[in-house]
Amino acid sequence: MNSSQIYTKRRYTLSLVFGIFALFVCTVSYAEDLLPSWNDGAAKTAILEFVAAVTDENGKDYVEPSKRIATFDNDGTLWVEQPIYSQILFAVDRVKTLAPEHPEWKTKQPFKAVLEKGPEGLMVAGKKGVIELLAATHTGMTAEEFEEVVKQWTATAKHPKFKRPYTQLVYQPQLELMAYLRQSGFKVFIVSGGGIEFMRPWTEEVYGVPPEQVVGSSVKTEFQLKDGKPALVRLPEINFIDDKAGKPVGIYQHIGRRPILAFGNSDSDMQMIQYTMAGEGRRLGLFVHHTDADREYAYDRKSHVGTLDKVLDQAGAKGWIVVDMKQDWKRIFPGK
Amino acid sequence: MNSSQIYTKRRYTLSLVFGIFALFVCTVSYAEDLLPSWNDGAAKTAILEFVAAVTDENGKDYVEPSKRIATFDNDGTLWVEQPIYSQILFAVDRVKTLAPEHPEWKTKQPFKAVLEKGPEGLMVAGKKGVIELLAATHTGMTAEEFEEVVKQWTATAKHPKFKRPYTQLVYQPQLELMAYLRQSGFKVFIVSGGGIEFMRPWTEEVYGVPPEQVVGSSVKTEFQLKDGKPALVRLPEINFIDDKAGKPVGIYQHIGRRPILAFGNSDSDMQMIQYTMAGEGRRLGLFVHHTDADREYAYDRKSHVGTLDKVLDQAGAKGWIVVDMKQDWKRIFPGK
Repeated sequence: MNSSQIYTKRRYTLSLVFGIFALFVCTVSYAEDLLPSWNDGAAKTAILEFVAAVTDENGKDYVEPSKRIATFDNDGTLWVEQPIYSQILFAVDRVKTLAPEHPEWKTKQPFKAVLEKGPEGLMVAGKKGVIELLAATHTGMTAEEFEEVVKQWTATAKHPKFKRPYTQLVYQPQLELMAYLRQSGFKVFIVSGGGIEFMRPWTEEVYGVPPEQVVGSSVKTEFQLKDGKPALVRLPEINFIDDKAGKPVGIYQHIGRRPILAFGNSDSDMQMIQYTMAGEGRRLGLFVHHTDADREYAYDRKSHVGTLDKVLDQAGAKGWIVVDMKQDWKRIFPGK
Repeated sequence: MNSSQIYTKRRYTLSLVFGIFALFVCTVSYAEDLLPSWNDGAAKTAILEFVAAVTDENGKDYVEPSKRIATFDNDGTLWVEQPIYSQILFAVDRVKTLAPEHPEWKTKQPFKAVLEKGPEGLMVAGKKGVIELLAATHTGMTAEEFEEVVKQWTATAKHPKFKRPYTQLVYQPQLELMAYLRQSGFKVFIVSGGGIEFMRPWTEEVYGVPPEQVVGSSVKTEFQLKDGKPALVRLPEINFIDDKAGKPVGIYQHIGRRPILAFGNSDSDMQMIQYTMAGEGRRLGLFVHHTDADREYAYDRKSHVGTLDKVLDQAGAKGWIVVDMKQDWKRIFPGK
């Protein structure tokens, strides 16, 4: 081998090494660029490693695309749930809107309390009162009519602290994560304790999640011929509560496959994560921990919404990832 | 213009005419090639025109892809439902399999009748008896265990007339139609009166419809810690009957959007078609009419399964398409 040959060979080897290195750098940077609002740390690493593992066709953890199911809770996981669930504020606003048609509400509980004190009136209404309010505000109309009411509310109502529409108070890091998962062949579902029809009118536009990939609590509906026209009418009766142990049930009913990734933020999501993690093969379970009083809210064990208590006790032993909002999220909301 | 120029111009014009003609022929043939098992006729034309209309971005009937929802009934619409629903035969086979563990069934109805007479024993069991059999054969196990049982049965059981596995007795024209719809940006769902978990283990492989796009009847399930492991246990209690007026309800619960195309084969699908057709914009509602005693079965108004009676009376006035199996389908089953 003469010097020219050696040179050529060395150059070739160097090119190869640089090439592989460049490919490696590109791959990693590329993946990281897809989650720009996530700070480097254990949570981001866990997500990137998990997605890399289940999408690597030659790896032992490979999962075929059709089985890449990811489920996300909504309130507190994808959008703000403080000071109270948006759906409660929707119900309160709806009572105020409908009050002129119901003069009897001025003296009848729980409507009287809600009209006088707003959401706090609802807090003391008890379970029976809440169901009465739900019936008065969410039922007795067709599916299309309710959809219209929800669209109007989300277009106009504003959050008391942030003074922005609720649909703008969604978490930017989660929007990026859902997009990254979809890009990696996942099908992303919402699995929420909230009303399924309260979410569906806007989840596609806001989260990129179409109505058929939203699982939630529901009232019974009935097929009727209304003025000769077929319509679905919403009845004042609970059909399904998609919360706590109801979440795995809702997933089974609706999706029919066990998720490989699930993301929640409270003890109400624990059963969904347990169910997800108990499947065979590699799994990822995550919880948002609200630790950022400045940019959003800080709450956990004693909060009246989104209580995160048992999860914090068990996360370490169970291998659940606790995402620290303050540490792990560079930005909270889109455009901020 | 000299003769050479005239010749060139004429040649150019001719080429253009032939070109356009060839393009036209190609376009039409291309579309027809996607439905090779459909004979030319009113039904095929209605399908091709409908799909062309809703996918034409410049047309007045354009529907954006996310709203192109198509729903298909299963029994009698996608696979054979005679002499009796496959799920009934599954339940009967299951009783026979489990009988050694239940010596009391030898004297206890409806099990005694089923063990002695097969499906006919079930036919006389009445509603209470059917529910008892459903409980004994479809519940009391985990979701995964039931899936395994269904997979084993579909892999081994054979149809009494055709001597082939039931999953081979699916209609080739419908497989082509579902593929054509998907290729045209549709999302295809099954909406069946049959058990949702009886279908999901094989619909993806057989129809290309993933579990999350299957809507059906269901039993209640419960999230339990079974031997310390989280599991979903199937309970002997009806959760939802996805039949007749239940179909639009199931569609609303599960899909959350009104289909623009729906395909059934019996009066039990009528409400689904009514609901579909009552939406705004262009819609297509179709029914399979089983008219082919030689290649499959011939039945309608008086059949004990898949009764097609009210539909036949109203189809003309309502603009529903009745697909005549004998006339409209070139082939019935794959590979035949």
